[in-house]
Amino acid sequence: MKFKIKKTEGYTSQIGHLVSMMNYARHTTLNAVKGLTTQQLDFLPEEDANSIGALLLHMAAIEVGFQIEIFEDRAPNKQESEKWGAAYELGNEGRRQIRGNSLDFYMDKLQQVRNRTLEEFQKRDDEWLYKERLWDNHTSNNYFIWFHVFEDEINHRGQIRIIRKMLQGG
Amino acid sequence: MKFKIKKTEGYTSQIGHLVSMMNYARHTTLNAVKGLTTQQLDFLPEEDANSIGALLLHMAAIEVGFQIEIFEDRAPNKQESEKWGAAYELGNEGRRQIRGNSLDFYMDKLQQVRNRTLEEFQKRDDEWLYKERLWDNHTSNNYFIWFHVFEDEINHRGQIRIIRKMLQGG
Repeated sequence: MKFKIKKTEGYTSQIGHLVSMMNYARHTTLNAVKGLTTQQLDFLPEEDANSIGALLLHMAAIEVGFQIEIFEDRAPNKQESEKWGAAYELGNEGRRQIRGNSLDFYMDKLQQVRNRTLEEFQKRDDEWLYKERLWDNHTSNNYFIWFHVFEDEINHRGQIRIIRKMLQGG
Repeated sequence: MKFKIKKTEGYTSQIGHLVSMMNYARHTTLNAVKGLTTQQLDFLPEEDANSIGALLLHMAAIEVGFQIEIFEDRAPNKQESEKWGAAYELGNEGRRQIRGNSLDFYMDKLQQVRNRTLEEFQKRDDEWLYKERLWDNHTSNNYFIWFHVFEDEINHRGQIRIIRKMLQGG
């Protein structure tokens, strides 16, 4: 495999760089969960922890949240909040609602959501990427927002690796 | 605070983008460990786990390893391997050797190491950043190598957040 951060076909130069980083992050996420069963995906290392399944759905939920905010310039509607709320927030509702799913379920969700992001990126350019945005009350730009999407994924991939080690050691 | 991914003063354009991502990753690492005592930094959630202190020193060790490989184009010498080996590898030696240190100790190490990276970046340009490199037997480039340095940091920051939650819940 080739691992380069660089321009990527189908995107403007800087969006292409971003896409190559997002692709690598996703590649490592999928490696981290390879072969896990539903039971393993539901495993909770501690009572108030998150399962690997919930963390995977959280990655998709974060991306959906920013798609709505950034591509559609609006807040999530009631239906979207109901569909993604538990995965977005994690915690009690995450533990209650996100369980019993196969790895394919999570992988499909991640892929479907990512497909839309990439389609939207193809319609945009670097000027858009540098456009100023408010993020969590800080001055930010679109580049940062999407950097944050993959850096949140990497953060949770690190957690998935710990949880996987625990469930296999236990 | 401003969170933007963009050109950064003192660096060529793409190196500046990289630096802004590395800076944000470091900012969140330092936030994740704020106020931890030596005892908390030494806490092991499981017998074969890594302490937060060891993960912090690991971040510095990974960066030192790539400094030697990329900036000096050589393998670590015996002295460097002895100094950084346990933090680089983690595991048993990490648990044995990395303990009893204050948060300041780890923060100083991280800062010293980072200072050198930034100094070296200031001497280089975007052409260097895209130069092809072998990484873990894959075709790669310098940009990817340094992306990997911060993505490894984010991965471990995610783990630090879990361990911190465990030690405060216990």
